[in-house]
Amino acid sequence: MYRHKNMGMLIIGLISFIMCSASIEAQVKLDQQYRDIAEQIRIEGLKNGQAYELLDQLTTAAPKRLAGSPGAAAAVEITRQMMLNFDFENVHLEPTMVPRWVRGVEVAKVINSSLVGTVPLTICTLGGSIPTPKIGITAPVMEVHSFDELRQIGDQAKGKIVFFNRPMDPTEMNTFAAYGGAVNQRSQGAIEGSKVGAVAVLVRSVSTRIDTVPHTGMMNYDPQISKIPAAAISTKDANFLSDLLTNEKSVNVHIKMTCQTLSPVSSSNVIGQITGSEKPNEIVLVGGHLDSWDLGIGAHDDGAGCIHSIEALRLIKTLGIKSKRTIRAVMFMNEEFGGTGGRDYAEAPQRKDEKHIAAIESDRGGFLPEGFGVGGNEKNLKKVQSWFPLFEPLGMYWIHRGGGGVDIGPLAKYGTVLMSIVPDDQRYFDVHHSGNDVMETVNERELELGAIVMAIMVFMLAEEGI
Amino acid sequence: MYRHKNMGMLIIGLISFIMCSASIEAQVKLDQQYRDIAEQIRIEGLKNGQAYELLDQLTTAAPKRLAGSPGAAAAVEITRQMMLNFDFENVHLEPTMVPRWVRGVEVAKVINSSLVGTVPLTICTLGGSIPTPKIGITAPVMEVHSFDELRQIGDQAKGKIVFFNRPMDPTEMNTFAAYGGAVNQRSQGAIEGSKVGAVAVLVRSVSTRIDTVPHTGMMNYDPQISKIPAAAISTKDANFLSDLLTNEKSVNVHIKMTCQTLSPVSSSNVIGQITGSEKPNEIVLVGGHLDSWDLGIGAHDDGAGCIHSIEALRLIKTLGIKSKRTIRAVMFMNEEFGGTGGRDYAEAPQRKDEKHIAAIESDRGGFLPEGFGVGGNEKNLKKVQSWFPLFEPLGMYWIHRGGGGVDIGPLAKYGTVLMSIVPDDQRYFDVHHSGNDVMETVNERELELGAIVMAIMVFMLAEEGI
Repeated sequence: MYRHKNMGMLIIGLISFIMCSASIEAQVKLDQQYRDIAEQIRIEGLKNGQAYELLDQLTTAAPKRLAGSPGAAAAVEITRQMMLNFDFENVHLEPTMVPRWVRGVEVAKVINSSLVGTVPLTICTLGGSIPTPKIGITAPVMEVHSFDELRQIGDQAKGKIVFFNRPMDPTEMNTFAAYGGAVNQRSQGAIEGSKVGAVAVLVRSVSTRIDTVPHTGMMNYDPQISKIPAAAISTKDANFLSDLLTNEKSVNVHIKMTCQTLSPVSSSNVIGQITGSEKPNEIVLVGGHLDSWDLGIGAHDDGAGCIHSIEALRLIKTLGIKSKRTIRAVMFMNEEFGGTGGRDYAEAPQRKDEKHIAAIESDRGGFLPEGFGVGGNEKNLKKVQSWFPLFEPLGMYWIHRGGGGVDIGPLAKYGTVLMSIVPDDQRYFDVHHSGNDVMETVNERELELGAIVMAIMVFMLAEEGI
Repeated sequence: MYRHKNMGMLIIGLISFIMCSASIEAQVKLDQQYRDIAEQIRIEGLKNGQAYELLDQLTTAAPKRLAGSPGAAAAVEITRQMMLNFDFENVHLEPTMVPRWVRGVEVAKVINSSLVGTVPLTICTLGGSIPTPKIGITAPVMEVHSFDELRQIGDQAKGKIVFFNRPMDPTEMNTFAAYGGAVNQRSQGAIEGSKVGAVAVLVRSVSTRIDTVPHTGMMNYDPQISKIPAAAISTKDANFLSDLLTNEKSVNVHIKMTCQTLSPVSSSNVIGQITGSEKPNEIVLVGGHLDSWDLGIGAHDDGAGCIHSIEALRLIKTLGIKSKRTIRAVMFMNEEFGGTGGRDYAEAPQRKDEKHIAAIESDRGGFLPEGFGVGGNEKNLKKVQSWFPLFEPLGMYWIHRGGGGVDIGPLAKYGTVLMSIVPDDQRYFDVHHSGNDVMETVNERELELGAIVMAIMVFMLAEEGI
């Protein structure tokens, strides 16, 4: 009996061991051919990668790429030419109408403070804002931290400049979540301010850094509520203004902004591909957005995503790697100002004969890639996770549920599995939508690693399907 | 029977599940009290962290901290004052003799090339090199990529400037390994060059970046082999020189360096601690090196390691967290020029009454912390790995075998478990030992996260022992 029991335990232990090891075994069995291809891409990228050089070309030729601007047109042309020069197939433009908004002069100052006198404040107009009257707006400032607080204050905000000063939560490790927790001040602040009679809103820059660089971004109006001007103030000056408000009963601020909204114009998504050998109409899309804010040069947001995509295809092309399905790079126009490019791409007549099996968006900067987010169903996720051994040698740590983005989102209803590359996000909101988003913040190896892992992922999707 | 079999399978499945989950269970059981302390440290660091500010103070007060320099003395004093200001206990200096080497003028140029004429080259003298004669050295350049190749060339190198041009392997994901594969050109190049009669050596900067910023570092002489001057050339100019050598039969380079070796002087390690409540003579050491190269301001190498250590203790002190054993921060002097500080610390008379149970060195920059390396035996590793759940919420991915460093290495023979914090290393060799090592390359959140994980680790070691 004793012996018997031991035997039973042994068998159970053995089976446990086998079952525990099952997933590891499955990984080990991943086709050697795929491992070889992934290694070829890794070596080629790290030895002869062009991502940094291409990003430099893009941001030099088209540093300011706000949708509808001449810079955006230059960006369309340079990425089209990159794709032609690399012999991508089916290189073409697809039209999308974009709004046009033009930044003008933007100045602000504390005036006649009894404590500090007249002091300039670093601000930038929020995208889509109306201008101030020509003489500007001068009004007392009222600081609030939430819409609830503003509603409670109610009439007291009448005639004032409402100053939204809730920072990103620094204790939130996921900086995108922290951004999500603060950005409604920017996107909806003018609506909520106007409801209580404010004459303008100043919004603390949604950033992880304390500096004098303001961060812009899209803001919204409600057709039912009268429009008031909206600007972002740098985090350092937000702290200064807040301190002043605790020490002085009434602080007057003068703001002047001369931005303009012009008529919409036609712009383009830029498309190129490597056509699949067996199922050319089944498509794996990889893309970023070509437009950027106009304060920095959009090196990370989203020059990096565009170049990730072009460089991924270039690596595959250079190595002569063939896949059954088509791999397509799309530079979407106008993610920042309403996402028209993504919607128009999904609904374009050419899509009728195509099936997009998967789409990966890169729009979280060119930092060290840590993982992939995968949408779709559980089976889709498991399949992509089974490829993880191909990404581990590149220093990636995980493949989780997630994925998607503004530009590829409209493909979801057609059954496309949406994915994202997820780089380290600790530095992203230092630069996002600001003058800090320049080449000096991009690291050559990190950017190239992003392109390499994207190349491997799109190849696997195109070859294996999902 | 059929039913029976099913039951058996169910039981086996259940047991498999339980056994598979065993390690997860162990993690979940980690004392809630430790989770709370780790969370307090995390929140305090991310909300009110001072690491970036302290690093700015250190690098502003003492930007140039080459061992034996006035800057190094300033660094001793400012870190001593930081520890005193934070009410660390037993704040004191311990002496260590350091060599003194002073950089002077350093210029180089290609002269009278038939293709490019006379062109300046960006170089820096290697640490410890002798100067050139006052009029400099002018000689033909001979490019080699390894000591084997140099030995085969043998006499042909006589009277020439040997140009070592083997880059770091860009395909090596671990950049420290790639550094290890290239750095012998810098450390031993002058010896090998002199053996074959070279008059000087120029060494390709050991860097991951292509730019015009040369990277210095320690070089060695052999007492049996006559000394020749040694300098590093920037990667961009190394490529330029190499291209020129493929197109021109003989290329003459002029080098002039006026560095000097002076007599050794006494300097100091800087020490402060939080004394343990139960076993004050059992010590957990955390440290970095206070000296740095003189080209940048040593923000990453190793200002970051020093500030990681001070900030770790400051966080613990601020939160009033007590531990059984003593937690000690040591700023080691002279890691870069022979490691005297680390050796003298280990052998100091005060050590007789102390037992260092563990030591963590931070000397890989202030980048995003990814893991910890742990030395000692398998049991030590397993114990530290059982604490991993405390580090996972901070975005760390692993605790592996590894650990150690120049400064804490001399403690190994006394049974100290040696550990290292391992940050993301993709950017480190862009800045290492060069003018690129400045505050602009340090990210506030990344640096603070390093201090936070160090604080949690030293607390756990001091409380739980190892």
